[in-house]
Amino acid sequence: MCHKDSIPVIPFSKATGLDGFTNTLEGGVLIDLMSMNKIVEINTSDFNCTVEPGVTHETLNQQLHTTGLWFPGDPGADASVCGMAAMSASGTNAARYGTMVQNVLNLEVVLSNGDVLYTAGKDGRPRKSGAGYNLTKLFVGSKGTLGVITQAAVRLYARPAVCSVGICPFQTVNKAIEAVVATLQCSVPIAKIEFLDAATVAACNRYNKLTLVESPTLFVEFHGNSEAEVAEQASLVEEIFASNDGREFTWCHAPEEQKKIWASFHSAYYAILSEKNNVKGLRIHFSVPTSALAKAVAETRKDIDESGVFGAVVGHVGDGKFLCIFLVDELNHNEMKIIQELSDRIVKRALASGGSCTGEHGIGISKRKYLENECGEVAVNTMIAIKNALDPKWIMNPNELFPKN
Amino acid sequence: MCHKDSIPVIPFSKATGLDGFTNTLEGGVLIDLMSMNKIVEINTSDFNCTVEPGVTHETLNQQLHTTGLWFPGDPGADASVCGMAAMSASGTNAARYGTMVQNVLNLEVVLSNGDVLYTAGKDGRPRKSGAGYNLTKLFVGSKGTLGVITQAAVRLYARPAVCSVGICPFQTVNKAIEAVVATLQCSVPIAKIEFLDAATVAACNRYNKLTLVESPTLFVEFHGNSEAEVAEQASLVEEIFASNDGREFTWCHAPEEQKKIWASFHSAYYAILSEKNNVKGLRIHFSVPTSALAKAVAETRKDIDESGVFGAVVGHVGDGKFLCIFLVDELNHNEMKIIQELSDRIVKRALASGGSCTGEHGIGISKRKYLENECGEVAVNTMIAIKNALDPKWIMNPNELFPKN
Repeated sequence: MCHKDSIPVIPFSKATGLDGFTNTLEGGVLIDLMSMNKIVEINTSDFNCTVEPGVTHETLNQQLHTTGLWFPGDPGADASVCGMAAMSASGTNAARYGTMVQNVLNLEVVLSNGDVLYTAGKDGRPRKSGAGYNLTKLFVGSKGTLGVITQAAVRLYARPAVCSVGICPFQTVNKAIEAVVATLQCSVPIAKIEFLDAATVAACNRYNKLTLVESPTLFVEFHGNSEAEVAEQASLVEEIFASNDGREFTWCHAPEEQKKIWASFHSAYYAILSEKNNVKGLRIHFSVPTSALAKAVAETRKDIDESGVFGAVVGHVGDGKFLCIFLVDELNHNEMKIIQELSDRIVKRALASGGSCTGEHGIGISKRKYLENECGEVAVNTMIAIKNALDPKWIMNPNELFPKN
Repeated sequence: MCHKDSIPVIPFSKATGLDGFTNTLEGGVLIDLMSMNKIVEINTSDFNCTVEPGVTHETLNQQLHTTGLWFPGDPGADASVCGMAAMSASGTNAARYGTMVQNVLNLEVVLSNGDVLYTAGKDGRPRKSGAGYNLTKLFVGSKGTLGVITQAAVRLYARPAVCSVGICPFQTVNKAIEAVVATLQCSVPIAKIEFLDAATVAACNRYNKLTLVESPTLFVEFHGNSEAEVAEQASLVEEIFASNDGREFTWCHAPEEQKKIWASFHSAYYAILSEKNNVKGLRIHFSVPTSALAKAVAETRKDIDESGVFGAVVGHVGDGKFLCIFLVDELNHNEMKIIQELSDRIVKRALASGGSCTGEHGIGISKRKYLENECGEVAVNTMIAIKNALDPKWIMNPNELFPKN
């Protein structure tokens, strides 16, 4: 893990492909960690495991299969678990199981001076510690700018005994999101609650040969220790959805069928991408407080409709997050300008409601300009002071988060 | 909030009484923030609120009473919510609702240069953000060493519709803790699971005029949206406890009775203190991974018995934490030496099992010597680099966490 002083180092893991993590390369060294692919330890008594950067969440869950445990982090792509830690990933199961912020217990990090840091002590896995500063949470989401993550210890959960998946179409975007808000406010321990707008459902139908009703739709999943527990959650949510003009639920209990439904949800980006030729997909993530969700999603959908460009809205709405997907022809400057303006408007609305310009994957390069808007000048100065303290020569993924000094 | 350069500043809030937070005063300025006692905002739609340092969790919950929401943080004493954030407090409800690490959403902090920092942006309350470094989690548990917390925004929860409390005595310490481990490993969403050893139960009986069976005992609490949900959890735990030689449960459904039971649990320290005259109470907190809990607690109890000194063991075992309470006569040097050796042995055992020398209230002054043992030299150097970056003159609660340069 040695490197020459002052040569920029950009850690690369499979997750980094999600959001331009590697785009900052400026004559630096790109470290591909994917061949460090050991599952170092699975501790079934304490419900945790330690993995190297080459281990993706799907590989990990395959290895966990016989233990009765699982790792719920699932940002869609089959991302590296260490990469997900670096980018503070969230995903479909965050509503019930939390994001990487909650689920990372310890990180091994190579610092800019070559020292190897264990953020919670070598072999440390307490359920709770108050010893010194919480370095683990500082490094989660630091995107390789403070060091290269070479191992992550993460929390595992008991695989739920019973799991049920439902799909419910709604009359309007607004009603669908109001149903989400009501569900969150009733504290139903829902595992997944995901939103697709009508354009996305239509694209998914074509791409996956499905016959879903082409209107704003919620995909939900319930976990429990018993049929009765799941049935109770499901019946409460059916009631909430019905009172928000939700149409008939389609329920799905067979594991293979459930897998197919989530595969179609996760294919949404590719489904939309296949709607047009010779375009690139541009994804912009946001998050807002629950109370601002319905207005934010509905106004975003309206903005896109009025702009004349093609765009879809989907989201891990259970965690207050949503995502716009635009199909862009980078040579069409007029369209690019419209999309840039749209994106600015949507970000500003999210920030004005106490939200974040980035629900997933960290701030990246394209959203660096919003960092001060969201966090304030003092917070950015504080972050830069930490960056200077831990990486005085700015060799660790420079240009990510803040422009280089 | 102005202060003269280089005069040490020690923020004081009611929570700080818990663990010697104010003991570092060395010719510095003690800031008592208790008269900043406004509840700044209660946001019932987004389940959060913002409070100043003078607001304790009991005061907050009284104000929340009519909203149907509550703040579950409960470290025993009626601590300041901001103080609990500064000290990364945990408490009886942590097993289900998490600790301050999970529940603090944003902090207003006056930095050493007088700048006012909002760790998640001014008015920021996204359920999830990936914008820059996670300053909120860095300041939770920083014990005033990086700045003075002047406001905290925390997560609230729906008050459970149904709540049930049970008390179950066991034959041995080991069996009681094995029952806890089995309960955690079955992923029962238990709200509270607290351990008292026989000495503590006996002291509580005398102090509170109770008639509990004087053997190692677990106090448990279940929350749910329905009677059926709570009954299902309770019946599973009854089964687990019975298979670990648990005796008959005493159940308690009336809110007033439940309140009385928890008041007696929280009085354990004072109950033990009243067992002897002219002594001081010395509390030492630890946490260990679930799999190490039974051995750690049983061996700790055995060590105390063999030492000849009076000591009790209680714990928020649902979160892997436990606590030894010794009654010390500081003039009895022989006894003080025995307790110091005992304490060292217990801490080393916790660390050897991947645990923490401090389950609650941060590292304090007395445990500073264990910080490097637990976290490693590189981690301590990293923490000191952060301290230097944010408080170059070490005026913020100096001597806490690390010895002053």
